[in-house]
Order: sequence, then structure tokens, then C-alpha cells
Amino acid sequence: MKKPWSGRFQEKTAKTLEEFSQSISFDQRLWKEDIEGSIAHAKMLNKQGIIDDNEFNQILKGLKEIAEEIEQGKFIFKVELEDIHMNIEKALIEKTGSAGAKLHTARSRNDQVATDLRLFLRKRVSELIEQVTELEKTFLAIAEKNIDIIMPGYTHLQKAQPVLLSHHILAYAWMFERDRQRLKETLKRTNQSPLGACAIAGSSLPIDREFTAKELGFDEVIPNSMDAVSDRDFVCDVLYCGAMLMMHLSRLAEEIILWATDEFKYIELPDRFSTGSSMMPQKKNPDATELIRGKSGRVYGNLISLLTTLKGLPLTYNRDIQEDKESVFDTIDTVSMCIKVINEMLPQIKFNKEKMEISAKQGFTTATDLAEYLVKKGIPFRNAHEITGKIVLYCLKKGSNLAELSIDEFKKFSEVIEIDVYEILTLEGSIASKISYGSTSLNSVMEQIKLLKNILKE
Amino acid sequence: MKKPWSGRFQEKTAKTLEEFSQSISFDQRLWKEDIEGSIAHAKMLNKQGIIDDNEFNQILKGLKEIAEEIEQGKFIFKVELEDIHMNIEKALIEKTGSAGAKLHTARSRNDQVATDLRLFLRKRVSELIEQVTELEKTFLAIAEKNIDIIMPGYTHLQKAQPVLLSHHILAYAWMFERDRQRLKETLKRTNQSPLGACAIAGSSLPIDREFTAKELGFDEVIPNSMDAVSDRDFVCDVLYCGAMLMMHLSRLAEEIILWATDEFKYIELPDRFSTGSSMMPQKKNPDATELIRGKSGRVYGNLISLLTTLKGLPLTYNRDIQEDKESVFDTIDTVSMCIKVINEMLPQIKFNKEKMEISAKQGFTTATDLAEYLVKKGIPFRNAHEITGKIVLYCLKKGSNLAELSIDEFKKFSEVIEIDVYEILTLEGSIASKISYGSTSLNSVMEQIKLLKNILKE
Amino acid sequence: MKKPWSGRFQEKTAKTLEEFSQSISFDQRLWKEDIEGSIAHAKMLNKQGIIDDNEFNQILKGLKEIAEEIEQGKFIFKVELEDIHMNIEKALIEKTGSAGAKLHTARSRNDQVATDLRLFLRKRVSELIEQVTELEKTFLAIAEKNIDIIMPGYTHLQKAQPVLLSHHILAYAWMFERDRQRLKETLKRTNQSPLGACAIAGSSLPIDREFTAKELGFDEVIPNSMDAVSDRDFVCDVLYCGAMLMMHLSRLAEEIILWATDEFKYIELPDRFSTGSSMMPQKKNPDATELIRGKSGRVYGNLISLLTTLKGLPLTYNRDIQEDKESVFDTIDTVSMCIKVINEMLPQIKFNKEKMEISAKQGFTTATDLAEYLVKKGIPFRNAHEITGKIVLYCLKKGSNLAELSIDEFKKFSEVIEIDVYEILTLEGSIASKISYGSTSLNSVMEQIKLLKNILKE
Amino acid sequence: MKKPWSGRFQEKTAKTLEEFSQSISFDQRLWKEDIEGSIAHAKMLNKQGIIDDNEFNQILKGLKEIAEEIEQGKFIFKVELEDIHMNIEKALIEKTGSAGAKLHTARSRNDQVATDLRLFLRKRVSELIEQVTELEKTFLAIAEKNIDIIMPGYTHLQKAQPVLLSHHILAYAWMFERDRQRLKETLKRTNQSPLGACAIAGSSLPIDREFTAKELGFDEVIPNSMDAVSDRDFVCDVLYCGAMLMMHLSRLAEEIILWATDEFKYIELPDRFSTGSSMMPQKKNPDATELIRGKSGRVYGNLISLLTTLKGLPLTYNRDIQEDKESVFDTIDTVSMCIKVINEMLPQIKFNKEKMEISAKQGFTTATDLAEYLVKKGIPFRNAHEITGKIVLYCLKKGSNLAELSIDEFKKFSEVIEIDVYEILTLEGSIASKISYGSTSLNSVMEQIKLLKNILKE
Repeated sequence: MKKPWSGRFQEKTAKTLEEFSQSISFDQRLWKEDIEGSIAHAKMLNKQGIIDDNEFNQILKGLKEIAEEIEQGKFIFKVELEDIHMNIEKALIEKTGSAGAKLHTARSRNDQVATDLRLFLRKRVSELIEQVTELEKTFLAIAEKNIDIIMPGYTHLQKAQPVLLSHHILAYAWMFERDRQRLKETLKRTNQSPLGACAIAGSSLPIDREFTAKELGFDEVIPNSMDAVSDRDFVCDVLYCGAMLMMHLSRLAEEIILWATDEFKYIELPDRFSTGSSMMPQKKNPDATELIRGKSGRVYGNLISLLTTLKGLPLTYNRDIQEDKESVFDTIDTVSMCIKVINEMLPQIKFNKEKMEISAKQGFTTATDLAEYLVKKGIPFRNAHEITGKIVLYCLKKGSNLAELSIDEFKKFSEVIEIDVYEILTLEGSIASKISYGSTSLNSVMEQIKLLKNILKE
Repeated sequence: MKKPWSGRFQEKTAKTLEEFSQSISFDQRLWKEDIEGSIAHAKMLNKQGIIDDNEFNQILKGLKEIAEEIEQGKFIFKVELEDIHMNIEKALIEKTGSAGAKLHTARSRNDQVATDLRLFLRKRVSELIEQVTELEKTFLAIAEKNIDIIMPGYTHLQKAQPVLLSHHILAYAWMFERDRQRLKETLKRTNQSPLGACAIAGSSLPIDREFTAKELGFDEVIPNSMDAVSDRDFVCDVLYCGAMLMMHLSRLAEEIILWATDEFKYIELPDRFSTGSSMMPQKKNPDATELIRGKSGRVYGNLISLLTTLKGLPLTYNRDIQEDKESVFDTIDTVSMCIKVINEMLPQIKFNKEKMEISAKQGFTTATDLAEYLVKKGIPFRNAHEITGKIVLYCLKKGSNLAELSIDEFKKFSEVIEIDVYEILTLEGSIASKISYGSTSLNSVMEQIKLLKNILKE
Repeated sequence: MKKPWSGRFQEKTAKTLEEFSQSISFDQRLWKEDIEGSIAHAKMLNKQGIIDDNEFNQILKGLKEIAEEIEQGKFIFKVELEDIHMNIEKALIEKTGSAGAKLHTARSRNDQVATDLRLFLRKRVSELIEQVTELEKTFLAIAEKNIDIIMPGYTHLQKAQPVLLSHHILAYAWMFERDRQRLKETLKRTNQSPLGACAIAGSSLPIDREFTAKELGFDEVIPNSMDAVSDRDFVCDVLYCGAMLMMHLSRLAEEIILWATDEFKYIELPDRFSTGSSMMPQKKNPDATELIRGKSGRVYGNLISLLTTLKGLPLTYNRDIQEDKESVFDTIDTVSMCIKVINEMLPQIKFNKEKMEISAKQGFTTATDLAEYLVKKGIPFRNAHEITGKIVLYCLKKGSNLAELSIDEFKKFSEVIEIDVYEILTLEGSIASKISYGSTSLNSVMEQIKLLKNILKE
Repeated sequence: MKKPWSGRFQEKTAKTLEEFSQSISFDQRLWKEDIEGSIAHAKMLNKQGIIDDNEFNQILKGLKEIAEEIEQGKFIFKVELEDIHMNIEKALIEKTGSAGAKLHTARSRNDQVATDLRLFLRKRVSELIEQVTELEKTFLAIAEKNIDIIMPGYTHLQKAQPVLLSHHILAYAWMFERDRQRLKETLKRTNQSPLGACAIAGSSLPIDREFTAKELGFDEVIPNSMDAVSDRDFVCDVLYCGAMLMMHLSRLAEEIILWATDEFKYIELPDRFSTGSSMMPQKKNPDATELIRGKSGRVYGNLISLLTTLKGLPLTYNRDIQEDKESVFDTIDTVSMCIKVINEMLPQIKFNKEKMEISAKQGFTTATDLAEYLVKKGIPFRNAHEITGKIVLYCLKKGSNLAELSIDEFKKFSEVIEIDVYEILTLEGSIASKISYGSTSLNSVMEQIKLLKNILKE
């Protein structure tokens, strides 16, 4: 089959090159956007008098037929036509003759593919924003449902202080709220129109870029034709947002995996979200979260992949840039699927309140409360810290915990300790005592929930 | 030396661990921010009645003395005190006794280091925004000064169409304008206060987080104490902004290197920004731009480094997170220095107008103009493209260029070609013909300049 | 469909999880290796008396039937059976009943998948070694065919010294020779048998791991069952080899792209290995090499992807590890295709001898020869360098080249310069003068060719 | 100060460029290798009659003085002399006049820096090999000391089967044994001499590259001068070895962190290898292992950094390549320090035998033994698996473990179960029953120890 650009060529393209350089196997995903863009472009050509009404109608009809054929799986994509653009244009010309042959007027694949990809990512990023919003709502619902479960908060994976499970869960909600912000910023930068930049220099024909931009719902027209065809920042931004989402998901996944161990036993995973072993009959594995954690790798890889590809490319379009698609498709698909899985799985997890609270009582988690108790009694914090450290060491040697010491024992370490110390050594006392903004007290957590709900309403 | 946290420990820290886990060798860069944060914290403790006026004044005086000692290089940083926080606190306690021992009340290194790093990055990112703004202005100035030089625009590093050098230069300005936007978004997310989150759970003491946030110029208080101490998104954002900046700089650097070759000779580099060879006496090398291009590697590496470190970390603070600093310091320093170099170098580059224009005349760069000429004469673009392709092939075999063909020769390919074709085959005619928005015509370029200047004024 | 591991489960697996955690969509590529491994395993079970002859024959027949069905595209892979292992085992049990139900004796998917992947990579890495060998031979052939073409050698993309094109080409041959070494080392570490490690602990049944290893052509049996199922070093090694190959290919591709520019014009690319533009009729683009250069990104990404996934995984098998396959499949496919393309394309490139030699005469490429000439006349090198530098500067101002200066002019810079200087200022003289081992003289290049040919014969 | 290459330059180098392009701040680490290489080079120049004995002696004396000055901290490194090579050469010339001015004869910084870096890495990689060997010996010692402690082996972080702690520990030894192999292969490729390749083309002077190679202990002379100055594969290889080592270390670190939690409590970390909290008095954190885990990020980043830098570089030396040093210095330092820390720490860890064994008894870890028991009684494995699964489910509902079921209860699931079943349900029985090569039985572990010891002896 003759290439649409073959005028000046004297040899047929090598099969090896055709197979190697084709993108139709993956850019066919852009068919809807390609046709959408072509319709807007044709409408503009018609409005500007570059094609007449009859030609426009033929093009429109042809493109709609093609869309239908693709939708129904009847359209045959041809590797020798390289990409989605040429496949559709060629089919259109077969249907409409010279009308179709006019569609590529004042357009190049360079601006066309940028348009398609921006339309595609606008849609997928918008959907991701929805998904992240839903996930935040899931965290809110879980926090509300389990608002007063107490667990040990961790630093260094060592028990630190008693916290509310809801507070812990909300920490994730805020993480993903930042992802949502990032996605929105990315969306803004994605939703700009390169269409009409043509190959590199613009056109000598009286096209109307504002018009096509408006037709396609773009916020802005990109003001430099060379930038329009060589810029892939918007793809990098999506890849970065994806990497951050996966980083956050990997942290959540890690905790679920830990909490589901026999050793922690803070949660029970639903059977429907676990799998077994081909050899070991007793196994019930947290596969979903392991895969999510593991998939951070591929999404990080996709980011570094495009950054590497773009490094050192001179202006403007270079064929290297064709490599932008598979990585961003994979990132979008992976992230979207991971959020779907976690969002469906989270509400089915059973929290083991009793186990969490028993655990929170171990490991001297209220030692900091004791230190702050001493501060309130007038002891400088640094000394209060040391006194408490020595009390902990005493307990360790004795094999008891803080609440089990007698007042006499306490007084050996500091005279200021009185009977009221026992109040702050309980989990409930510890939680309730936290009065600072953003802390783990019930009030503070309820405030957070309200705040985040308001943000999500906007 | 006794560790400030050693109450419960029975052995001295191993030398190997001290050396390994210390951060003072690199986090001493945060000393100003650490002291700034401590002053705000002390002021708040005083306002809240947790320390009295006398104590506050002692602390203030002590911290100011320490600041002076550090500034004058008299302060001795000690590895066994681990980090900047403990080094300063210990020194303060030595100066002030129990007043200093009260400074760490309702504060942990966990919220302290996050505060310091946010203050530091706020400053450095703001400076970067200034630098990028200056760089955009440099592009604008170069574009204005050389507004009508014509050069071949490239795709695939093959000559594509004549463009204005100013249009090409502005493509870079728009790239960096996106960097500026990203930096501003990052700044917004950086400028939030974690102070008062304490170790993980908040405090039982009556602290005022709004007050310290305001004192330190933060826009917001982070509403979840666990998120506050474990979040490093703001660092990742800076690393990503840096990677994008370097990607853009590497593209610019590549072009400067190409243009400075004997083969392109589009530019002459200043001697002061070139270096020679230890062995080859004639060499004059574009080292500055090579280094800029090469340094994209380290900045990409820094991004992947922190993403890797954060992968799979359970809440909240883990010591792994200490690894956030060196990478972001290096990225900020590298990017900042690269922009400084390029910004100083660019105005000293001499553009070889004549060479660029001769080059633009070769390679059939006006072939697309010829095709659009045919379109205006009624030929469908796809056919116009093929006719032009055949004319190019004819020229290639004949060894002439388009403008050298006679009308009779043209007419063999298409009857519609008339004598007016020669107008659009000149470089000037080609440039002038571009009437679409964002194109390479003089008007369009001047519009772009105006637009970007307005954006920078905001 | 009931999961083969579902004994202890009370709920059906969620559809979302099935879709998410399935690997059959990509690990079906391992079907041959899976069956090969199963046959060896069954043969061993039979030899050890764990299954009888009849059972073995049923299993063998069943597996062969399945192989045929897969080969003919008749086998239906089922997502709910998760992976290639369960798909095949289930089909076997359907065919053979209890015989098939015995196949998984003393085997887990953990050792099975490691076996499959090692067999697969052994094959593909061996093929890659063949391909790289062929590529080196192509370089040798090109070097021999063009052995005496002179071109400017470059450092910093500035002309440095005259070199033989063949010497330049051989530099690439040596690069890829290192790749070949690395691949061989990787092959060695890949070709070890994990089979019989079972899930993690080995088996209480009298299996013979040496026997299956020998059957499958493995060099060694992995001596620790826990290591056997959790090790993916061999996959990382392949990913790294791929990254290095792409780094080398990207350097070669960059040079081909440069040399094919109108500015360098050192080579003419075959039409069959170039493509055109949808809009610009004159374009002939070096797409193949741009894509190769660009694809370095994805292969680097694949490496970082698996390294990230493996970071911080506790022993032994974790589901994260399932992510090892797609990245290594993509790397192997990409690298293999890139080598195929370049190897087919290289011999079709026409070198423009005349253009290269004209270019080599410019840029004072023999200045270093002049400096060494001065050294031979007794001038210390550092001074010789400076004198030559000043002569170059004189030429630059005068607009002439070194060979055009008169002896009188030379003598103004150094009295030791005599009429014999002109000999070493010619390209041929410069090349011929290089007498050090590994230099660019004809002799040295012919020596290199002989040496490399001998290495490839081994 | 005049640059040694400034002959042809008319302007002084810009301060900004000097500061930016200098490498002396980090390549001064190569001073020993630089002097070592220069002495070998001078010896060769003398042997070949290029410099006379007197000149050689002056150079030798001068270089030794410089070495002493550097060692004693008296040598002043100058940024305007760019790098270690020029700093030393200039100092030598100041000491020796024209003798020193002859040292750079037939040498360029291009081959010089490659020589220095290869010498440096040869040394550091050799040391790393020693360190890894020591680490393997540590694992062996720990395995031997704790050879019969039983613990639960894990897959998916869920208890899988009882294994010996020593078996688990040895899995790490085998991991690091692969690192050792990789390092040795890297060493081989590093230890080749580029010296005498000069700038790019070799020399017209009668140098003897074999001689300098032998003097410097290189195994081979690199046979292509262009490859010699542009190859950095050996640096990439080191960076990759480092990344793999850190990947392995991060897995080990993760397990230590897990085992040190209050939830697992399998180990007690020494106080001397733990640190406390500035706020929480009870904390004892596994900082060393967290840092090791976290530092995988920087070492991965270093690898991607250099790969990115090298992508798409045309031959031969480009200034980008200067970026090879800091990353490899950091990788070598980091990896070496991490191994030192872990190697010092591991023997001080106390294993909690009792806790491990109690844990191993929970989670139905002998279920697979029960399935294999059924296999021995003639039940096909797939059925045995299902029967056992159902028994586990029965236990779960009943709240008992396998060994607590009565024979009657067992028989409800399978008639073949007899009284002997209880033997294999004990931990000891389970471990002892493993008879396959490489399994977790005591014999097998002792065999492994013997095997690895033999390998390390070689």
C-alpha cells in the first residue's frame, strides 16, 4: 500500500521498519479523540470556506461511519498505515474521495497527535480525579464508622503513642487530597489546544484555532506552534501524578499487609479479596495489596522512561516522542485499577478493635503523656524526658508497664508525681488529653472530617 | 556525650552507628530555619504561658548568639549530637540551663525537621521562580533583538520549514513558563505548617499552631498530625519540578551544542564560556552546555531516589525519610546553578544570521508552502502533498532547488501553478504567509512577546 | 469456577480482584516452558516412584495435547484460573483425572514460575547473544569495506583529530562486545534450577532435583529453597544488560541522526529505512534511529521498575514479584527488535567519503599533530601546545587553515618548524603517523579487526 | 591564572563557568591514582627515550613531593585549574620547569581521567568484594550458632511453613554471593588500560601502552583509542552492582525492622545500634536498618543518573561524562558503609528462640506437611490440598490448631489419616521430614554451609 507521504520516495518502506515504527497497535486507543478532533477541524475548514458544505458533510458522514465500524470491531487497522491518524484518513478518502483528501489541510500529524493525546488525557485525568474523590470519601466513611477505636500510632514501626484509628485513616485521606490537587493542576495544563500548529510553523491558510479549541472544549490555544508540537510536559505531569499516587498507595498497601499478619492481626481481610496457595492449603494471602505495592515499580518506571526519552531532544517533533503513549496508557490504567481495587476492598476490611487496643497498651505508649504531665508540674521538658526514660527502663527491668507502678515507685523518680498521674496513663486519658489543632483527640478528628468534607464539596 | 534521649538506654551508641546515622554534615544547611522555627515556637510557648518572659528572653538571646556563632563559623557541630536540631538545643541548654531545657516542650524532631525543610524550600523555590522569570526575560530579549532572523525549523533534526529564530527561541520561553507555574503550585503546597504536630499525636499542652504558622509566614496549618510528620510530597514536587527544568535545559543545551558545531555554525560561543583541551591546541568546546545536558542525569536520579525511599513506608515518620535532604539540596543547587550559567551565557552568543538563512534555503523547506499554494488553487491537500513530493524528487535528481525550476517544469506536475508561485518559495514569502495564530510570522511572534510579557508582569 | 486452592475459603473471589491479579494475559508467553518444566517434573516423579508409569504416560500425553492446542490457538485461557500454571494444570486434570491431580506433588507455583522464567530467559538471552554477535560482525564488515575513509573524530561534538571511519565504527563493535560479555555472565546466573524448592521449605517427598535440573539443561541446582523462590537477580541482570545495550544503541542512533542531517551529510539513509511527513512533502526522516534512541527510555524504565518493586521485600515470595514479567518481556522484545532494525539498516547506509574528508580538513584537526611535531623537535609538550594554540588563533584571524601558512609564518611562532611540517598537516599524513597501539592508523585498525574476529570465533 | 590550554583563546574564562565546570572539588579524591598513573607514564616516556633520565627523575621527585603535600593537607587545590590533573601538572611544572612541561606528552585528560577512575574503582571494588565476603561469613557464623532455631517461614508475609532460622539466614548469604560474583565480573572489565589512547586518535610518538598497563597492574590494554576515552560501562557496572547490593540489603533491613517490632519480637536489637526519640522517652528505634533501607533510593538514583547522562551521547568524550564521578563515589561510599554497619550489627542481635517457635506453631504452618502426608497415603496432591484446606477451615471455625484435632475429627475429612499424623504436625517433625536438596532440614542446612564455605575459600 502506498504511503500517503510517499511522493518523494523511490523505495518501498522495509517491512522491518514498518513493524518497528508502527504505532497503530497502541495508538488505536485514541480513535475517538482522533475523530472528534477531525470533526472539529473539518467544521472549522468549512466555516472558513476552505472546504464547502458538501465536502464537510461527506467528511462528517464518513468519519461517523468509521467511528461506528471501529466501535463494532469491523474496522481493520493496517500496520502499513502506521498510526491511527493515517488509518482513519485513508479510510475516509476511500469513502469520500477528494473531500476526504482535503481533511488534512492545515494540519499535520504533529499537531493532530498532540490534540488526540490531550483530549484523551483530559478525559482520563478527570476520571482519576473522580476516583480519588471517591477514595477520600471511603476513608471518611471508615473514619466515621470506626471513629473511637484506639490503636498504637507508630514511628519507625515501633509503637509511639496511642492514636485513634480514624486519625490514622484520615492521614491517608489528606495524602490523596494532595494527589487530587496535583491532578487538577495537571488537567489545567493538559487542556490546551495545539491544533492548527500544523507541522511546526503554522499555516498560510486562513484557519481559526480559537474555533477548534472551543469546539473541543479546550481552555486555551497554545501560543507557539513549535512548542505546541514538541511539548510533552502534560504527559510527564500525568506520569508524575501517577507515581505519587502509587507511592501513597504503596504505603497504604504496606500497612494493610502488616496489619493482616498473624503478628499484628489488626484486621481481617475479606476472603473475596485474598487468594490461596497452590501448594500450602492453609494460606490466605493479601495479594491485592501486594500487587498494588509492587506496581509502584512500573509506574515509577514509566515516569523515568519518558523523562529519559525527552532528555536532550532538539526542537521540535522527533520520532522519539512517539514513545510517550504506552507509558502514560500503562500508568493511567494501572493507577485507575489500583484505586478501584483498594476502594472496593477497604470497606470490607474488618478492624479488630480489641487487638488494637491491647496492642496500644503495650510498649509504653503513654510515656510521652507522662513527660508532658511532668512539664505541667513545672519540670523542663528535657528533664521530664529523661526522668520518664528512666521510669521506662525501670519498668523494662521489672517487667511491668507504667500504669502498674505504685505512687511510691513513681516518686522515686520525681516527687511531683501524684495520684492523678494514672488518668493520663490510660489510652482514653491519653487520647482525650490531646488538645492541639490537628491532634488525635476525638474533637480534632471530627473537625478534620468536617474540613475535608467541605473541601470535597467544592 | 550523653544523648538527650538516652534515659532508657543502657549502652552508648556505637561509633559506627553515630557516623552512619548522623545528618549534621548536611542538615546544618538548615540552621537558619531551625533557629527561626525555634524562636517562633518559643514565642508561642511564652504567649501560652508555658514558659515565662524571663525564660523566653533567655531562649531568644541564646538562639541569637548561636546564630551569630554559626554565621561566623565559630560553632562546632558535633556528630554525636546527630543533627542540627540537637546540636542547637544542646548548645542552648548549655547557655541557658532550664530555660533551654524547656524549648523542646510540645515539639518533636519530627515536626521540627519538616518545618525547617519547608521553610528552606519555600525560600529556595521562591528564588528559583525568580531565576526562571529572569531566564524567560532573557529569551524575550534575545527574540526581540533578533526578531527577523530566518532559520530552518526542524523536525526529526531534518529541515522542515523556514521559521523565525525568535519564534524558535520563544518556544523555550513557553517551556520555562510552564516550569514557573509548576514551581508556584509546589510553593503553595510547601508553605504549610507542620509545627505542633509533635512526634505523631499532637500535644496535651495548650499550644497555638495557628500562631506559629503565622509567625513563620505559613499559609496554612496542616490539619492531621500524623500526615504532618510523614508527608514528603512537597519534597517530591520540588524534585519533579527540577527534573522538568533539567529536561528543558537539556533540550536547549543540545541545540546550542549542535548550533556551535562546525557543521551547523549557527552560533559563535563566547570564549569566556568555552574551554580548551589539554592535548589538542585548536579545541574550543561548549562545556557549559554539555554539563547542563549531562546534569539532567543527576536531577532525574534525585527524583527516583526519593520516590524509591518513600515506597512502601508505613506511617508515620521512619528514619528512611532522613534521606530526603541531600537529594533535594543537590537538585536545588544544580538547577539553580544551571539556570544561572545559561542565563549569563545566552546573551553572549552571537547568531550567524547569514549562515542560518543560507541553510534555510536548502532542504526544500518551502515545499509545504508549495503544497498549500496548490490547495489555494483548489487541489485537495493530500494530492497537493503528492504533487509537491514528486516535484521535490525531480529537484533531487536534477540537483536544483524549488525556486530554480521554470514555470514549464512546474506545470508538468500541475497545471494550476502560475508565476506567483515564486513569491511563496522565498524564505521571506514563506514566513510572511503564515497567518494562523501562534505561527512563525512576524506579527504572530510579536503577539507572543506581548502575551508573555503580560504574563510575567502579573 | 472453583479455585484449586479454595479449600479453606468461604467466599468466591471478587471479580475485581480476579481481573486485577490475573497474570494469564501476559504469562501465557511462558506456556512452552511451563509444559517443558512439567514434563521434566513428571518424569522425575515417575522415576522416584511417586507416580506410576501409567500416570506418567497420561500426564505426558495430556501435556502434549495441551501444547498442541495452545500452538493451534484452540486453548482457551481463563482469567479465573489466574495464571499459565493453573490454566494448564486444570486442563490436564480435566483430561486425565487423578493422574493430572498428582502433577503438582512436591511443587508450588513459587518454584514453577521461577523455573519457567529462567527457561524462557535462557532462550531469549541466548538469542540476544547471537544477535549482538551478528551486529559486531556487521560493524566489522562495514569497517573492512570502508577501511580508509577519513573523517573528523569528535570530542564535545567539535572536530578533534582526523580518524578513520573504520576506527570510529569499531569503537561501537567493542562497546557491543562488552554487552555480549555481560549477557553471557547473566546467562550463567540464569541457568540454575529452582525446581523442587517447592513453596519455600522443600519437600518431605523423595524428589530428585538434580534429575529435573539435568533434564531441563540447567547448569546447577539452587542450594537454598527460600532463595530459589524469592530470587529475581537474574531478571534484574537481564534488565540491566538491556539498559546498557540501549544506552549504546542510543549513542549510535544519535550519530546516525546527526550524520544524516543536511548539515553533516556524512551519510545517505536508504529510502526504505526512512519515512515521510503527513504535511511536509519534502521530508525524509531517520525515524528508525530516532525510535531506537527514544526506546532507551522504556528499557531504562523497566530496570528501575523491577528494582523498585523488589526494594524492601521480606523473604520469600511476595505477590509483588509477579511484576517481574512484563518489564523483562518488554525489554527483551524491544532490545531484540532494535538490534534487528539497526543490523538490517546499517549495511544499507551510504557513506559520503568526499564530504567526510572535506569536513576533516576543516577545524584545524591536525593541530595536535603539529604539537607532537614540535615535541619531536625538542619542545616540551606544554609549550608545544601553547605555540600551536597561537598558530591556530593566527589562522582564525587570517581566515586560513594550518596547511596554508607559509614556512615564514610558521617560523614566527617557532624556529624549529621546517618544511617537513606540511607532511603531517595532511589528513593522510596525520592518520599514518599514529603509531601507538589501538590508534587510528590503518595498521592498528586492521589489528583490531583481526583481534575482534578471533574473539568472536571463540 | 592562565589556563594550560589557553593558547587560542582571547578572553578569560567566566567566573561562573569556572565555578560551574570545575571538578576539583570532587575529583581530588583521585589524586593518588592520578600520581600513580603519571609516574607510570613518565617511566614509559623515559624508557622510550621521549624524556631523558634527568627529566624523569625530576618528574618523579616532583610528583612524590606533591603526593606528600596532598597527604599532609598542604597542597592548595585551585578551582581555576579545573581538575585534579591540571592542578597536579601545574604544580609539577612550577617545581620542575620544562621537565614537568613534558609530562603531558602523548597524553590527554581524556585517557588520564579514565585511567584514574579505573584505578580507583579497581581498588574500591576489590575492597567491596572483601566486605561482601566478610558479610557472607557473618551469615554463616550466625547460621551455625543458631542452627536449630525454628521459625515460621513466610510467603506474602503470611506464615507458610516451619523453617530453620539458619536456612532463612543462609538465603541472604546466597544473595550476597551473587553480588560477589557480579563485583568480580565488574572488576575484570574495569581493570583495563585506556592510557595512551590520548585525546581520541592515539599518538604519533613511540609510546608503549603495554608497558604502562603492566606498571599499573592492568590486565589488558583497550584496543580502540576512541572507545578507551568514551567508555563508561565499567562505571555503570559498579553502579548496578551497588543497586543490587542495596536491593538485597533493603530486604534484610526490612526483615530486621519487622522482627524488632513489638508484634513480631523475634529479635532484640542492641542498645548500641538503636536510637531514641527527642520527644517520646520510651522509644528505641531500629534506625540503622531504616537508613539502610532508605539508602537504596540514592543508590538506585545514582544508577539511573549515569544511564541518563550517557544516553544519546555521540562519540567520543563529551563533557557530560564528567558527571560519572560523584554518583559512583556516592554509591561506593554508601554501599560500603551500609555493609560495614550491618556486618557489625548482625552478630549483636539476640534471637528470641522461644517467641519464634511459639509463632511457628500458629497459622497452620504444617498444613502442607499434612497434605504431603495424604499424598504418601495415596491421595493425589490436588485432592490432598483440598482436604487439608477444609481441615484448616474446620480448625478456624473451631478455634483450634491442627495438632489439637482428634483422630476422629481427622477421619471425617479423610479415612487414610492415622495416628502417625501427629508426628508430622510438630515443628520438629516438619523440619526433619524435608529430605529434598536445598530444603530446610538440618542436614540440608549443614550441607549448604559446607558448600558456601568452600566457595568462599576459592
